[in-house]
Amino acid sequence: MHRLQSFLYPQSIAVIGASRKDGSLGKMFLTAIQRMNYKGDILPVNPKAESIDGLNVYPSIDKLPQKPDLAVILLPQKFVLNTVEELGQSDIRNIIVISAGFKELGQEGIEREKQLIALKERFNLNILGPNCMGIFNTHKDVLLNGTFSPTLPQPGHIAYISQSGALGVAILELAQQTDLGFSAFVSTGNKADISDTEVIEFLKDDNNTHVITLYLESVDYPPHFMNICRETAKIKPVLALKAGRTKSGLKAASSHTGALANPEYIMDGFFKQSGVIRKNNLQEMFEAARALAKQPLPKDNRTVVITNAGGPGILASDMIEDEGLQLAELTPQIQKKLTEILPEEASVKNPIDMIAGADHKTYEQVAELVLNEEYVDSVILIIVKPPVQTTPKEIVDAISPLAQNCGKTIIATLMAAKDNNSGLKQFIDAGIPVFDYPESAVKALSTMWQYQNIQQRMRKSDAIVVTPHSDYPQTNELKQNNTQAPVRELLEMLRAYSLEIPAYRIDNSLDGLLDFMQKHKRPFALKIANQEIVHKSDLGLLQLNINTPEQMTSAFNAIKDIAKRDILGNNEPQFLVQEQLSPSVELVIGGKRDPQFGPIVMAGIGGVFVEILKDVTFRLAPVNVSEAGMMLQELKAQAMLNGARGNPVVDRRKLSFAISQFSLLMAEHPEIIEMDLNPLIWSAENQVPVAVDVRATVTTK
Amino acid sequence: MHRLQSFLYPQSIAVIGASRKDGSLGKMFLTAIQRMNYKGDILPVNPKAESIDGLNVYPSIDKLPQKPDLAVILLPQKFVLNTVEELGQSDIRNIIVISAGFKELGQEGIEREKQLIALKERFNLNILGPNCMGIFNTHKDVLLNGTFSPTLPQPGHIAYISQSGALGVAILELAQQTDLGFSAFVSTGNKADISDTEVIEFLKDDNNTHVITLYLESVDYPPHFMNICRETAKIKPVLALKAGRTKSGLKAASSHTGALANPEYIMDGFFKQSGVIRKNNLQEMFEAARALAKQPLPKDNRTVVITNAGGPGILASDMIEDEGLQLAELTPQIQKKLTEILPEEASVKNPIDMIAGADHKTYEQVAELVLNEEYVDSVILIIVKPPVQTTPKEIVDAISPLAQNCGKTIIATLMAAKDNNSGLKQFIDAGIPVFDYPESAVKALSTMWQYQNIQQRMRKSDAIVVTPHSDYPQTNELKQNNTQAPVRELLEMLRAYSLEIPAYRIDNSLDGLLDFMQKHKRPFALKIANQEIVHKSDLGLLQLNINTPEQMTSAFNAIKDIAKRDILGNNEPQFLVQEQLSPSVELVIGGKRDPQFGPIVMAGIGGVFVEILKDVTFRLAPVNVSEAGMMLQELKAQAMLNGARGNPVVDRRKLSFAISQFSLLMAEHPEIIEMDLNPLIWSAENQVPVAVDVRATVTTK
Repeated sequence: MHRLQSFLYPQSIAVIGASRKDGSLGKMFLTAIQRMNYKGDILPVNPKAESIDGLNVYPSIDKLPQKPDLAVILLPQKFVLNTVEELGQSDIRNIIVISAGFKELGQEGIEREKQLIALKERFNLNILGPNCMGIFNTHKDVLLNGTFSPTLPQPGHIAYISQSGALGVAILELAQQTDLGFSAFVSTGNKADISDTEVIEFLKDDNNTHVITLYLESVDYPPHFMNICRETAKIKPVLALKAGRTKSGLKAASSHTGALANPEYIMDGFFKQSGVIRKNNLQEMFEAARALAKQPLPKDNRTVVITNAGGPGILASDMIEDEGLQLAELTPQIQKKLTEILPEEASVKNPIDMIAGADHKTYEQVAELVLNEEYVDSVILIIVKPPVQTTPKEIVDAISPLAQNCGKTIIATLMAAKDNNSGLKQFIDAGIPVFDYPESAVKALSTMWQYQNIQQRMRKSDAIVVTPHSDYPQTNELKQNNTQAPVRELLEMLRAYSLEIPAYRIDNSLDGLLDFMQKHKRPFALKIANQEIVHKSDLGLLQLNINTPEQMTSAFNAIKDIAKRDILGNNEPQFLVQEQLSPSVELVIGGKRDPQFGPIVMAGIGGVFVEILKDVTFRLAPVNVSEAGMMLQELKAQAMLNGARGNPVVDRRKLSFAISQFSLLMAEHPEIIEMDLNPLIWSAENQVPVAVDVRATVTTK
Repeated sequence: MHRLQSFLYPQSIAVIGASRKDGSLGKMFLTAIQRMNYKGDILPVNPKAESIDGLNVYPSIDKLPQKPDLAVILLPQKFVLNTVEELGQSDIRNIIVISAGFKELGQEGIEREKQLIALKERFNLNILGPNCMGIFNTHKDVLLNGTFSPTLPQPGHIAYISQSGALGVAILELAQQTDLGFSAFVSTGNKADISDTEVIEFLKDDNNTHVITLYLESVDYPPHFMNICRETAKIKPVLALKAGRTKSGLKAASSHTGALANPEYIMDGFFKQSGVIRKNNLQEMFEAARALAKQPLPKDNRTVVITNAGGPGILASDMIEDEGLQLAELTPQIQKKLTEILPEEASVKNPIDMIAGADHKTYEQVAELVLNEEYVDSVILIIVKPPVQTTPKEIVDAISPLAQNCGKTIIATLMAAKDNNSGLKQFIDAGIPVFDYPESAVKALSTMWQYQNIQQRMRKSDAIVVTPHSDYPQTNELKQNNTQAPVRELLEMLRAYSLEIPAYRIDNSLDGLLDFMQKHKRPFALKIANQEIVHKSDLGLLQLNINTPEQMTSAFNAIKDIAKRDILGNNEPQFLVQEQLSPSVELVIGGKRDPQFGPIVMAGIGGVFVEILKDVTFRLAPVNVSEAGMMLQELKAQAMLNGARGNPVVDRRKLSFAISQFSLLMAEHPEIIEMDLNPLIWSAENQVPVAVDVRATVTTK
């Protein structure tokens, strides 16, 4: 049994710090839990009261009449640790610590949180919080409101996991205005023990939850989060709002829940890789969740707009194109039928503008025609308050039977005051999500389509996971260095991972270099190979376009002089001679090791795109060829791969393979701190990306 | 008197097509006009009724007891033209044509609209519409609801001009949920006569209007629109939503109001140049308008977030940074004072997180401290429904007196169900705009800051307008061509506009070229100069890096051979020799003539930025140096101007001057259809942008 079971489906709850004092947390919590008619047993604990609101109160934990599934601590911070210890001693192991005063306070609080974690380990406890707002579950067999919230959640199928407790209350409040209905809410607070990831893992198999939404200030165990989310996304959508994206936000977050700062540069790639849909504002996240919770996923991206007003239809059309959806092209047959139903001034193309005279029968007839078309995947239904003969309510009533079993996605926009005739209730009953603005409706639909794609991809994910060979032999020489890695080792390592490198030789004698020249194809590049020298070209330690033995000799002498004079002193210079490729499309692959995220792989197109526009994309390593292909699709300058400006077309499969192999190398070599292939050259001649230069920082730690 | 005066402030209205039949347009219109208690005289015209709803009805136009200020035509389309003619004959010159069935219908309708325009000219009429929804004005001396809308507009100071009538009704309906209050609404419909621009021009001086919002499907006279908007933006903000941004939207728009398709590539630059704030969705436009209508503009971009919950404060902080605002840094003094007021767990940095216990007194004390700080320009006030001791209503009551006269911008976020304790009414009374989500509040504030900057800029605009010398002498030779312009003329034209070009000579003899060589600085570029040849380098008709007479001879012969063999036949090749600049930062300036927008100037950074990323920016020509400077600021790759990648720093003032001069050239030479300076080279050596290559298409028409 998952350890969250007892938190979300408890048979009994001890409320430690229950109170009869109005306005106290203990009283509010008890009131909230009673108001929702919790189906289990409530066991208040308070040494000074015998009964509160008709409930028996127990003076202490050891006096409880039964062992509760769950204990909630509402006490002031100074009593928390002792209480947790008592619970541990009574073998009450599932605890929610509402109390604040821990990690979020700074040093003193961090110490206190460490002690809490020590208790957890000593008694093998499961702790939610501290510094959290609790939990609710609207399942009819549970009906638990353990959140103080005076406003009861509307039941529904959206779960909300929030690092900010207040944002739970806030969303519950705003939910009253719409059809936002919740299955469960979990406030994770400081996440001393139970993480968002574990809650997601539990909710993945919770039948009452169809959509998972997250408010995060930090992702704590990124690779684990990723794996769980990828599994979850096969079954239900996960939407996340990650706060603290900016420096200002990050500063604010660190004093809130003491959240660890996640490196923002990786976050977009990380969420994509995790199958999580990232949103940057609350409204969009919950609007998308409402649509996902109510309607079937669209099979494809072809949509029809049915409207009684032109303007909103045009705004919807603009947004449809923006969001990568498309207006389905209506057949001449259906256009003809529409002409018969609609007045002359109407438009029978998509968007179908029925004009202001359309009543509920018109809506019904048109919707029926459209929903029967096989090539229509979804409908955006727009209702501007009709001037005549009908009300939005009548329209919904007419449409609703059609909507029930058509298997297509229907999203509505209702531009009317939300009075008794607005039909809002009918929309909710019919399971049709409704929005104020056409743009919001289209965005919600587009998120559904986005999730449809993610789900397909994740369901194929067994085939696309790359497992590192953890026993891959590591070279000894690398292990002994903690700065720059020796070039020869790096080049051979690339070769071992099937990454292409140019023909090369490392030598300290001119004779060796000249010998290499005779056996290989000119021109050549000559550079210093001593690993302690990093910025070769800046120092004049790289010479290109060497075609003749004379040029080689002169390059050799020039580099040797500079190196000995300026850098190496008595150390012997080592030379790397390589066949020089004719420059064509320059690519960059890089890797680094992040303290939180582990090995990371980066890809970009060389030169100005990386340097000026930061047009790069990141993933946790390793990635398979398919994920690497998605990285390439994210590059703004990807036209450069398609043969732009007279360049050869880059074979994306081969480039993706190189990225995947490199990511595997990063994953399997924990001694590599940073590594760059820059440039990696694609030329018409070679038809494979070749790593022309490689450098790496390694550690022995 | 502006001709819109009689439309928005009429003393009397004739309603032609008034009816007593329930559900008819004529009845609805009369009901709407009466319900708002119109202050003027209502004069219904209907041959078949003597009185409707207590109003005297007149059988025909010539039987009216007085000449009305305004006539509204509600008749079926087939009666419209005759009625307009009758009105003209009775010298009733201000007419709203509600009736549809004109340009939006296609060919037949276009003809009918032409006849309408002919009548307008014959009788010197002023016509709003056809195919429009009418007008309203909430001014207390007018109280005119001439829109059918059963929902009465909330009075306020936002004017809304809409090409879509239905979007007027829709917004009125949605406005009921917020503090969106209107001064006036004008539905422009097909804009056969009166354009949005004229309505803006009138509202500019309408004291009851503080903010102008626009829904546009087309801009009909762009330069005129621009001039009026620039004048208006000195006084009040203009916000515009331009629908039909995408291909899908454009298609939908053309069947709606028969709108002319505006070229989207210029629209962003055009709105910026016009001082208009462009929004891409309705919600954002009206949210920004609400803030602008209620609060004073922020003096600078330093804001403080005051919140009772951490999460929303972090989300606000992220958005503040995204939107180019900044969190004001609180002094140690004020932080100390805050520490005294707030509990230990609170955060006294910005965002100020007072935590959940904050009651209305805490809000009041903190707001008072913050609003007294001289370096604070604005406050984002966040209220999550407080768990204890206070209601949002009490908080507003406490804050409101402080907000009244502090001269700072205050925007609120109220994350609470909108019940009786929500304080929504108090917020509205206090003139504090309130939003559901912190992100929306910050976006609205950011639009206010954006407008503050626009206003400053436009108020300086007398100094920044460039007036073309329309009498600038035009070369005859240009006039005689209708394809490629001759190179010599173009180069001399650039020189005449103080644009730098390299030293050059055009000659057909090798001797001439060699002579030029002796007198100028090598290396040289040699190319064919015959204007009929466009793609010189592709054809091998451009040779670079010529240093010696031998190289010149060989280049001359090579080009001559190719040109004579492949292109020129018996025509004599002409050569252009130029001093060749060492390539450095490559820029592009271009111009073209748009049928609607007239001369347009474009700027970008050469190479991949233009070709791959379409990183270019447009304006109507001419632009002054300051506007050209703004164009440069819009380039994504502008780091290239700042000395990135070892390049010299480009002097933006000199580059802006070049853009401005080029734009003047475009404006003053209507014979130029298209012209490119590509590349324009900035080198460390020259310290001025030099037009290395120029080509132009000209016409004699």
